[in-house]
Amino acid sequence: MAPRFRLHGIHLSGPTYKVALGLSLCGEAFDYEHVPLREGAHKTPAFLALNRFGQVPALEDLSNGRRLAQAAAILEYLADVTGRFGGASLDERLRVREWMYWDYDRLAVPIYRCRGVALGFRKADEAVVAGWRAEGEAALAVLDAHLAGRDFVVGEAPSIADIDLYGVVHYAPAGGFSLVERPQIARWMARIEALPGYGTPEALLPTQSRATA
Amino acid sequence: MAPRFRLHGIHLSGPTYKVALGLSLCGEAFDYEHVPLREGAHKTPAFLALNRFGQVPALEDLSNGRRLAQAAAILEYLADVTGRFGGASLDERLRVREWMYWDYDRLAVPIYRCRGVALGFRKADEAVVAGWRAEGEAALAVLDAHLAGRDFVVGEAPSIADIDLYGVVHYAPAGGFSLVERPQIARWMARIEALPGYGTPEALLPTQSRATA
Repeated sequence: MAPRFRLHGIHLSGPTYKVALGLSLCGEAFDYEHVPLREGAHKTPAFLALNRFGQVPALEDLSNGRRLAQAAAILEYLADVTGRFGGASLDERLRVREWMYWDYDRLAVPIYRCRGVALGFRKADEAVVAGWRAEGEAALAVLDAHLAGRDFVVGEAPSIADIDLYGVVHYAPAGGFSLVERPQIARWMARIEALPGYGTPEALLPTQSRATA
Repeated sequence: MAPRFRLHGIHLSGPTYKVALGLSLCGEAFDYEHVPLREGAHKTPAFLALNRFGQVPALEDLSNGRRLAQAAAILEYLADVTGRFGGASLDERLRVREWMYWDYDRLAVPIYRCRGVALGFRKADEAVVAGWRAEGEAALAVLDAHLAGRDFVVGEAPSIADIDLYGVVHYAPAGGFSLVERPQIARWMARIEALPGYGTPEALLPTQSRATA
């Protein structure tokens, strides 16, 4: 059977990984379209028709033609259509959403950018990087404290909040953030990595397009 | 009748304004609790029990005891419980959510921070501020281009995406961003400002707590 979803992204992109991880944990195989950002492929009219923001990832639901943007919004959609990882109750779903907005607000930007600088994708003034580093550390401290006594971010089971946040924190060491002082985060990451369907970015994101034969 | 909602925030906070504007446009009167950030009131155990992130705003739904955090997540909740401004269809709701995550990702941080610097609430290195300014201008350009030929951000009617984005763009001039070159944004703002229940931050956010007698 042909996959239901087609993911457009790039293997080095944290937000693309969030969606690939969500799909894989939901047991959804997916077609994959490599978007070479260096060639400006995300700013072409064809790509902008998929994602008006000109950002990766984009997800197509081939069962109904929907085109989806923004990793956290895509995870909410996946939770809705698969019935997985959406939280066990309305209250849990509300908490899940709060954590995903908090991620966008406080965590993802500084960690992804510090990683970009460390890998040489991004250049920035030293004071700018120092600001990101301080923000990233502060956000990691909030998450670490929250995870004390908890197995997952919301409720008793993994949710899209875990998937979303893991898709940032996975890159923290590459951005120069040590997780040695964040024992709750380290244990939580091990729990995510033990879930059926878990894969690293290298395992889940091809470096070239992949379509079902 | 006592109001259903109690908003906790501070009159100078853009995210607090987003929620106050949403409540007002929904026709919901609300009790208001002033949170003096300079005194660290958002880091007290009592406030952290309302909002685990230690950020304003927080919203209490007094009808069921729910405590809600993150302005965009609160706007989603308001849309759900009032049946207003949530989009006319599932597809519109998906678009609305994408725009709110995009706001958190690209627009709100640079604009709020440039305003904070301009007002003297925040100090930052010149290179840091230049980075925020460039990001804010880029995001405003995306929004302006999107609004060409559209009355509202998603669909034919105002939604929580408009409320959320307006609650940032309203502060752009105070942050030193000129909207003269953003004619679509300027016309869209006038449309929001003409909605029944619209109020400025000064009109909607008291400088002290306010409870129903």
